Amino acid sequence: MTRLLSIGTYGEADTKALDEMGARFVPDLDAACALDDAARADVTAIAFKGSGSFDDAAMDRFPGLGLIANFGVGYDAIDVEAAEGRSIAVTNTPDVLNDDVADLAVAMWLMQGRRMLQADAHVRSGTWAEGTPFPLNRKVSGGTAGILGLGRIGYEIADRLAAFKMDIHYWSRSPKKTPGWTYHADPQSLAADVDFLFVAVVGGPETENLVDGRLLDALGPDGVLINISRGSVVDEAALLDRLERGALAGAGLDVFADEPRADPRFAKLDTVVLQPHQASATHATRGAMGQLQRDNIAAFFEGQDLLTPVV
Amino acid sequence: MTRLLSIGTYGEADTKALDEMGARFVPDLDAACALDDAARADVTAIAFKGSGSFDDAAMDRFPGLGLIANFGVGYDAIDVEAAEGRSIAVTNTPDVLNDDVADLAVAMWLMQGRRMLQADAHVRSGTWAEGTPFPLNRKVSGGTAGILGLGRIGYEIADRLAAFKMDIHYWSRSPKKTPGWTYHADPQSLAADVDFLFVAVVGGPETENLVDGRLLDALGPDGVLINISRGSVVDEAALLDRLERGALAGAGLDVFADEPRADPRFAKLDTVVLQPHQASATHATRGAMGQLQRDNIAAFFEGQDLLTPVV
Repeated sequence: MTRLLSIGTYGEADTKALDEMGARFVPDLDAACALDDAARADVTAIAFKGSGSFDDAAMDRFPGLGLIANFGVGYDAIDVEAAEGRSIAVTNTPDVLNDDVADLAVAMWLMQGRRMLQADAHVRSGTWAEGTPFPLNRKVSGGTAGILGLGRIGYEIADRLAAFKMDIHYWSRSPKKTPGWTYHADPQSLAADVDFLFVAVVGGPETENLVDGRLLDALGPDGVLINISRGSVVDEAALLDRLERGALAGAGLDVFADEPRADPRFAKLDTVVLQPHQASATHATRGAMGQLQRDNIAAFFEGQDLLTPVV
Repeated sequence: MTRLLSIGTYGEADTKALDEMGARFVPDLDAACALDDAARADVTAIAFKGSGSFDDAAMDRFPGLGLIANFGVGYDAIDVEAAEGRSIAVTNTPDVLNDDVADLAVAMWLMQGRRMLQADAHVRSGTWAEGTPFPLNRKVSGGTAGILGLGRIGYEIADRLAAFKMDIHYWSRSPKKTPGWTYHADPQSLAADVDFLFVAVVGGPETENLVDGRLLDALGPDGVLINISRGSVVDEAALLDRLERGALAGAGLDVFADEPRADPRFAKLDTVVLQPHQASATHATRGAMGQLQRDNIAAFFEGQDLLTPVV
């Protein structure tokens, strides 16, 4: 009897652990939906690590489903409202990845401002050795940073930036308890007041294209956008347009509208730092995420309270 | 009458400001020493921005010299003892560059650990778009960092690292007042206890090859060396040997033994981040350094106390 279905590609340790829990493995949601009726009817819990859309129609295929345990903090691939309507619980893996994601956000900010990709190439190519000096660049610490979405990850980013003597501004649905950071009631006002804007909102329909052309114009030609949230939050056409025109100083992007097919126009820009959605991709953190996903599944099977339910 | 001689290559703004102070310009110390006797005899102050060795013999050529105003915090190119013997004052430009240097140190640490150069290339080349995932890498925050030399720059590095939840250890000639950081009485003990070692001592004969093969072995195969101090502090042959053998996990280097001719063996390694001695090379900071150099010169000419004398 298959009670647990694993959807997606897992690492060796996670695969072994899920196997020990009796999981059946399929590579993606399409393959899951294509299982025969009997196999699908048995499934009560799904370990989900996919970018496919786990919508109403997909849930229809699993009549006995009681839990979708998502691998990752962002669960925008799952229609949570549909799940709620069917009494399917949804869990994610928050918090364990906050530090890694904040680390990468700060690193992209520093790399972009100090032009460290170009500087490494300047040494590596021998250009420096031939006597060509590397141009002066931009001081980043001591400036003004805006956090768009002061959730757990946004807070970790802000806390690191504070150690770089940054003046911290943020937008959130409501003011939060902070060590004196400046609240903005709307994203536009935030973007207008800062040099560096860090996108840390959750993905999904509510934040789609929140960072649009108008907001990027408020950030302005000295502004830099750092995104570790979701590609969907940014109007990528507007972003590319402004980067190509120099109407924005630069960007650090770990996420893209259509992953992994990052728009090739980004690759032509030397004012951007590009990362392959790797913010949480360390051995330690992915290990902790897998463990939390399995702990939620185990709690479900044992009829105990879920550790990190989404709703 | 040339009272002020400018040695080195300055940016436009600094050149203009030194010109307004009546400076005569030469590109390097050799050219300065080659000026005719009358020109040299007139010189009472030198604005020095050079990597040449300002030694006893060079000082002999300027019998009326009263001040060497160094551009930069590191003045290891100047024989301070010889200067003192001749009552030549020496000034440098401390503090104004601390933030930039600490920023670059932390950035190299993050980039090396999270393999961000390789990750950027993975996106830019289209490899990610073709479906090849980027390998998991190393979590850096929450680890253990050692600061070799807890001066002003070392302190700024440590303070930033603390925001990344690092456990901070340090070596210094004597224990300092810190927020609970762990003191080590010798560099060897420091290196043995940490994963990431940040070199922040001053250059010069006293620290030459302080980071030798034995210390790198104490740092070990999981260890990473970050150097924003001087190339002379590290035994580069020992470092290259360990990096090439994998006996050290990696390095972030802004300084090299023979600048700008960084050993081409470094360029072959993908475990290192290489920077062209650009730690203080931002418009804002270089501007502040030039101003402080000139303020020292002006104070000297006006018979006032020097702002930042070295001794």
